[in-house]
Amino acid sequence: MTNTAEAEPVADPLPGPRRLDDDALATLFTNARTANTFADIAVSDAELREIWDLAKWAPTSANFQPMRTLFVQSRDARERLVEHMSEGNKAKTLAAPAVAVLAHDRGFHEHLPVTTPHLTGLPEFFAQNEAPRLDAARNNGWLQAGYFVLAVRAAGFAAGPMGGFDSAAIDAEFFPEGGWSSFLVVNIGHPTVDSYRGRLPRLEHENVLRWA
Amino acid sequence: MTNTAEAEPVADPLPGPRRLDDDALATLFTNARTANTFADIAVSDAELREIWDLAKWAPTSANFQPMRTLFVQSRDARERLVEHMSEGNKAKTLAAPAVAVLAHDRGFHEHLPVTTPHLTGLPEFFAQNEAPRLDAARNNGWLQAGYFVLAVRAAGFAAGPMGGFDSAAIDAEFFPEGGWSSFLVVNIGHPTVDSYRGRLPRLEHENVLRWA
Repeated sequence: MTNTAEAEPVADPLPGPRRLDDDALATLFTNARTANTFADIAVSDAELREIWDLAKWAPTSANFQPMRTLFVQSRDARERLVEHMSEGNKAKTLAAPAVAVLAHDRGFHEHLPVTTPHLTGLPEFFAQNEAPRLDAARNNGWLQAGYFVLAVRAAGFAAGPMGGFDSAAIDAEFFPEGGWSSFLVVNIGHPTVDSYRGRLPRLEHENVLRWA
Repeated sequence: MTNTAEAEPVADPLPGPRRLDDDALATLFTNARTANTFADIAVSDAELREIWDLAKWAPTSANFQPMRTLFVQSRDARERLVEHMSEGNKAKTLAAPAVAVLAHDRGFHEHLPVTTPHLTGLPEFFAQNEAPRLDAARNNGWLQAGYFVLAVRAAGFAAGPMGGFDSAAIDAEFFPEGGWSSFLVVNIGHPTVDSYRGRLPRLEHENVLRWA
């Protein structure tokens, strides 16, 4: 916890973590913005898979990984999607180069023998206890959504996350077999200079940070 | 949505987003790992503030920003914290160079005039409707936790997020005035070569991705 003259020599850290340079921090955080419109440049299925294959590595509770993604690419599917979105989100979602519907899998525990083999009693516990299972699915789904938004940016795209939609209607339309619960829609593409609105304030440290 | 010969010329994108280089992607995602032990190198309060000042910029629903953080630095406070953590998390949390308790603020709506000035009816709505307010606090808190974990890595540290603790007891100990609900504890420091366990599998695309 402290540096002392008696401390053992520290082994060389693994490659990474290393502080990212300012350009990378700007791309991820300090200069990044939610995009409302995009340049007319397609986003390929391979690029969307790469975004997933970045985000998937970030940690979840006991490696649960409950987040799922539906990429809505065809014109027909895009129209069926926006029918259940709020008015202000329809046009930009129809026009976005790519659209991801993020969901959590309420039945994620069926994959526990693969994801979490060391906790052998857990599949049965979650099968019999729906409330903690749905809590884990929902909380870790949102956690992974945070990773996903930053993976979009890390892969060189702008993200436009939106919560204004009828989740139950989208689930009925796209996930009729049940199990997946949509919770965030994310437009993805290359931004232009006029893709962004003014930035809203962030709270001051005195309102959000404490020390003990 | 598609590239056509008739498309208008695209304005130059803003600085960023640009795809990060492979070293940065390794630091954030592909090579990053949850750390269980750390090198004996202190993490300063200024470094912890920088982590916050990265994570705070990533987007939340209508800019709600409900996540709060308690940094537990003193020996006395660290001992009071681990008293409410599961056995397997006590020793590593006592020894970690820095510890962050992530919480969501159930009263985040009191800051809406600052964070979300364009939705003038929302403070009253949330004051009168606790269920959607607590949903927004919880969901966006977990979303911001995803940003926080990646901000720890982007700032050059390793993160050790843990869910094994008695949230109500920690809230009573550290947030006696009410309002903040702890949901994740994150150890922070510089890793050593033996900080990591074996990596657990990630789910295959066929289990997690769909296309429409």
